[in-house]
Amino acid sequence: MSKLLGSIEAGGTKFVCAVGNMNFEVQDTAVFPTGNPEETMAKAIEFFSNYEIAAIGIGSFGPVDVNPNSEKYGEILATPKLEWRGFNILKALKKQLDVPVFLTTDVNSSAFGEYTKGAAQEDNSCVYYTVGTGIGGGAIQNGEFIGGFTHTEMGHAYVKRHPLDADFKGVCPSHGADCLEGLASGPSLQARTGLRGEKVGEEHDVWAIEAYYIAQLAFNTRLNFAPERIIFGGGVMQQDHLMEKVRAIFKELNNGYVDVPNLDTYIINPAIPGNGSATIGNFALALRELKK
Amino acid sequence: MSKLLGSIEAGGTKFVCAVGNMNFEVQDTAVFPTGNPEETMAKAIEFFSNYEIAAIGIGSFGPVDVNPNSEKYGEILATPKLEWRGFNILKALKKQLDVPVFLTTDVNSSAFGEYTKGAAQEDNSCVYYTVGTGIGGGAIQNGEFIGGFTHTEMGHAYVKRHPLDADFKGVCPSHGADCLEGLASGPSLQARTGLRGEKVGEEHDVWAIEAYYIAQLAFNTRLNFAPERIIFGGGVMQQDHLMEKVRAIFKELNNGYVDVPNLDTYIINPAIPGNGSATIGNFALALRELKK
Repeated sequence: MSKLLGSIEAGGTKFVCAVGNMNFEVQDTAVFPTGNPEETMAKAIEFFSNYEIAAIGIGSFGPVDVNPNSEKYGEILATPKLEWRGFNILKALKKQLDVPVFLTTDVNSSAFGEYTKGAAQEDNSCVYYTVGTGIGGGAIQNGEFIGGFTHTEMGHAYVKRHPLDADFKGVCPSHGADCLEGLASGPSLQARTGLRGEKVGEEHDVWAIEAYYIAQLAFNTRLNFAPERIIFGGGVMQQDHLMEKVRAIFKELNNGYVDVPNLDTYIINPAIPGNGSATIGNFALALRELKK
Repeated sequence: MSKLLGSIEAGGTKFVCAVGNMNFEVQDTAVFPTGNPEETMAKAIEFFSNYEIAAIGIGSFGPVDVNPNSEKYGEILATPKLEWRGFNILKALKKQLDVPVFLTTDVNSSAFGEYTKGAAQEDNSCVYYTVGTGIGGGAIQNGEFIGGFTHTEMGHAYVKRHPLDADFKGVCPSHGADCLEGLASGPSLQARTGLRGEKVGEEHDVWAIEAYYIAQLAFNTRLNFAPERIIFGGGVMQQDHLMEKVRAIFKELNNGYVDVPNLDTYIINPAIPGNGSATIGNFALALRELKK
């Protein structure tokens, strides 16, 4: 086959578009800020118009209607990005590029990339989280995304407070300091320290607090899904000392209760370099859609 | 078909065995306390020996190896019931009754019963919890149980403390007052009030605390699985005032963030009467196994 696959990673701050071959090797990319919907989608379509595209995978910020049986399938729902609310990303694309399209959330795309060609490529199940500006997650079991009447929203789960963090006000606009995103996203680190996460030294006390929340997320994930692999991407997690702390606290939280694989290979970073998990995932989802 | 289906609900305190027809109608039952494994299984086998059984579904207390590809498939694992640790419930049954057997956890069986003939019979996904002596859950999506390298253990998830409950020591032997089972199982109500849950009056403050934890469980379940239905069984949940409190607190916890169906029909009790969900689930799983 000489045709190509397309990927749109539609993030809240930027769009990453890519064209790849049938081996999921990137041939070209275009990155631009997420502006108003019409202009942004026009840029994506212009990029793809240079290639003979057979199918496209989209991983979108949300909430987004990903249910093919829904009337609003493809529509961006109650996002704080008001210009995008009610915009149908799938229809806008299909109007110009009439090829098979698979639409899911950005974190589901990343999960699928790691499942197909990354850290979970030998597994039948995995859960992927991104911990950055926000916290989000996607789960896969036997090739299918976990999700029922709509997609999951794992980053806003309620967790136990760290005793030394009791007075922190949190940064989640909806849940304050009650949910994971409010307590453990990148902006929460900045709110506590005045510094961006990557500037906060390894010896800072805030890392013990951060690790406590991420370890709870990992432990609850083991309980809820029993996945074969738990993968943490996103800017905050790119620090070996943090991953080590998370594993150590996970062990304390479990207290020998549930079976877990070796934590050094169970709770890990993505294997696909350069934040490329979502792009690979979108290529794989595009190909799957094409073969249907 | 004139043959019959068998169900074993292997609980930590009692075994409920049943024989049903191909419409999942119960024809006979036997209930006996969970004694030592050999004696208990002999009673179950004796009960079934009066019937021509085509296949059996087992819903077992855990942890139990439910992975057909595992060497220990069928073995009861690190249970506090020491006599049962290392006992292979599946092998013990198959030795005497060589019919197709499907083995899962007791809560998965209940979930499957409600999915097949109960509150979720028109849905493609549901999560079932029991809140009683312990807390456990089972999730189904498109007819398959959620679970990867082993079964889930949803009842031990970490949650946010209720502010008026900060000093409670909890009742979970593994996690004290850190996990749901430690904070919200039946024994936790008794530890706080000195009374069994069903004797605690509706006006008691403990119900606001209990509802807060169960509402968190329901909210986190919406986030993690987005199931079409969330079903709460078990002794503690058989009180309308509690279910109403749970729905009201769920709404507060969500704070308008995620889409949810009408809570009055989303967060509900089982539809199968008389604690019969697991039996119906086992019949349905037995029949599915028979048809394979």
